[in-house]
Amino acid sequence: MAFDVLQDKIKEKKNPTVVGLDARVEFVPPAILYRYINLYGETLAAASLAVMDFDCGLIDALADIVPAVKPQAAYFECLGWQGMKALEQVIDYARSKGLYVIADIKRGDIGSTATAYSEGWLGRTKVGCTACAAFNADCVTLNGYMGSDAIKPFLKDITERDKSAFVLCKTSNPSSVELQDLVAGDRLVYTVMGDLVKRWGGRNKDRYGYLPLGAVVGATAPSVIKELRYRLDDVFFLVPGYGTQGGTAADVRYAFDELGRGAIVNASRSIMCAWQKTGHNGEDYQAAARAAAEKMRDELRRYITIL
Amino acid sequence: MAFDVLQDKIKEKKNPTVVGLDARVEFVPPAILYRYINLYGETLAAASLAVMDFDCGLIDALADIVPAVKPQAAYFECLGWQGMKALEQVIDYARSKGLYVIADIKRGDIGSTATAYSEGWLGRTKVGCTACAAFNADCVTLNGYMGSDAIKPFLKDITERDKSAFVLCKTSNPSSVELQDLVAGDRLVYTVMGDLVKRWGGRNKDRYGYLPLGAVVGATAPSVIKELRYRLDDVFFLVPGYGTQGGTAADVRYAFDELGRGAIVNASRSIMCAWQKTGHNGEDYQAAARAAAEKMRDELRRYITIL
Repeated sequence: MAFDVLQDKIKEKKNPTVVGLDARVEFVPPAILYRYINLYGETLAAASLAVMDFDCGLIDALADIVPAVKPQAAYFECLGWQGMKALEQVIDYARSKGLYVIADIKRGDIGSTATAYSEGWLGRTKVGCTACAAFNADCVTLNGYMGSDAIKPFLKDITERDKSAFVLCKTSNPSSVELQDLVAGDRLVYTVMGDLVKRWGGRNKDRYGYLPLGAVVGATAPSVIKELRYRLDDVFFLVPGYGTQGGTAADVRYAFDELGRGAIVNASRSIMCAWQKTGHNGEDYQAAARAAAEKMRDELRRYITIL
Repeated sequence: MAFDVLQDKIKEKKNPTVVGLDARVEFVPPAILYRYINLYGETLAAASLAVMDFDCGLIDALADIVPAVKPQAAYFECLGWQGMKALEQVIDYARSKGLYVIADIKRGDIGSTATAYSEGWLGRTKVGCTACAAFNADCVTLNGYMGSDAIKPFLKDITERDKSAFVLCKTSNPSSVELQDLVAGDRLVYTVMGDLVKRWGGRNKDRYGYLPLGAVVGATAPSVIKELRYRLDDVFFLVPGYGTQGGTAADVRYAFDELGRGAIVNASRSIMCAWQKTGHNGEDYQAAARAAAEKMRDELRRYITIL
C-alpha cells in the first residue's frame, strides 16, 4: 500500500526528509557544467548532461541518509527533450539506489488527459500489446483545481502498482492565500481541498494507517499544519518550505502523528546549493550537500521521534 | 501584443477554432502506427514517431483553414523523452506552417519554478551566455491555484516575446463544480479566479482591446460564459468542451464580443478522430479531419461574425 513503502524507508534511515532536485543550470557547480560545455558547447544537450551528472552526484552523496528525492519537472522541461531524457535517467538512478522518487509535476487535467499523465509518470503506456514505462516515478504531485476528474484516474496506477500521490492543499508560497484562504461556507478553500483529498483517498489504509493519496501542506504556517493534521488524520503530508523559504523543525513537527509518522519534509536549495556557501567553488558539492542533509535530519530529530 | 497575433490569424481565416492535438496511441490510424512498429517494434520510440507523423499530417490538412493548434502535453509525456522530442518537432512544424501554437500544459508552481516553466515553454533557457529555445510555443495554459506566484513569472516572456497564456478559470469537466463553484463571499471561486486573471493581466491592451493573459472558460455552461464575458470584458477566452464534451455553437457564441472577437473554441477528438467514423480505417484521416474542421467552422460562422 502506497505510503508504507516510503514510511519504511523513512523509519530505516530515521529521517523524514525528501531532497528536492531543482537544479537550475546556474546551480550546477562550474567544474561539472564546463566539462559538458567544453564538449558540446553552450547547448541544451550540455546543460542536460551537466544537470544529470550533478543530480546523480547528489544522489550518491545522500542515498544512505535520506529516504527520498523529489525532482522538479520544470528544471528539466526548461532544457527541452534532452532535459526530459536526463529526468528519466535521474529517476531510474535514484530508484536503483533505493530512494523513493516523488516527481514534482503538479499536473491536473480532465479525466482522459489525467489518465495519460498517470500512465506516463506512474504506470505504463500501451504500444500495440506492449506496456512501456516512461518516467516511472513512485509518486507524483497533483493539482485538484479541476476536481475529482483530475485526481481519480491516478488511483488505478496507485492501487495496482503500489504508487502514491500528493495533492496541493495549502502551499508554502506567499500568494497561496489569494485563492486557498478564501472562506467558503464554514471552511476555507484549502480545507475543502483537504477534505476532498481524504475522500478521494478511499478507505484502504496502509500498515501505518495512511491513505494512498496525500496532501501538500506548506511549512510556513504551523497553525495551519496543526489544524490539518487534526482534520486529515489519515492523510500523509508532503511539507515544502523548510529552510530557504523559512520553515523550521519546530514548525513542521505538527505535521507528524504521535509516532513520528505521516509526513515528509522537503528541502531543496539549502541542500542542493550548500556548496555555494563553503567557498570551494563547488568542488565539495557532495560533502556540502551531505553535511546540510545531516544537519537538517538532526534538527528534525530534536523534535520528531520516529517509531 | 500577445493575443492580437492570434486574433489576426482568426480574422484572416474567419475561423475562431483551435484544433487540439491530443493523440493517444490508439487514435493514430493503424497504417501510420504499424509503419513505425514494423520498423522499431512496440516501443515508445515507434509510438512517438507515429504520433508526430499523425500530428504533422493533421497540420498539413488543416493549416489553411484553422488559425491555431493546441498540443496536449500529457499525450507526449506518456511516451517519455521521445514523446517530448516529438512534441518539440510538432510545435516547430505547426509554427512553420503559420499556426499559432497553444501548448496545453496547465502548469502552476511557485515563482522560481514558474520562471523555469516560462523559459522552457515560451522563452529561452540560459546556458552559459547562450539563450536556448526548448519547446518554443506561442501560448500556454496555466493553473492559478497557488496564486499570483504561479502566473506572474510568465508575464516577462509574454511581454518581451509577444506570447500569451490562458489561466484555468471555469473548466468544462463535470467535477469542475467541486472547487470552482464554491461560494466565497459574494463571488464563486471561478469568479475570483477570473478577477485575478484580469488583474494579473495588467493595463496594456492589444489592438483588439484584450489583455495578454486569457482565461479558460468551458463551453458546457452558456450562462457562465455569458456572465464571465460581461465581467471580464478585456480577457481573451479559450473555450474547451465543444463537440465531444457537449458544447454547441449556440452555446459558445456568448464567449465572443459584439465584433466576434476575444475567444477561440477548441475541438480535439471530433476533428482528430473524425477518421474513425468514415469506415476507411484511417486512410482518409486528413480529409476526414478537414471536413470535420470545416463543419465546425461553418457552425460557428452561423452564430459569430468576425469583423
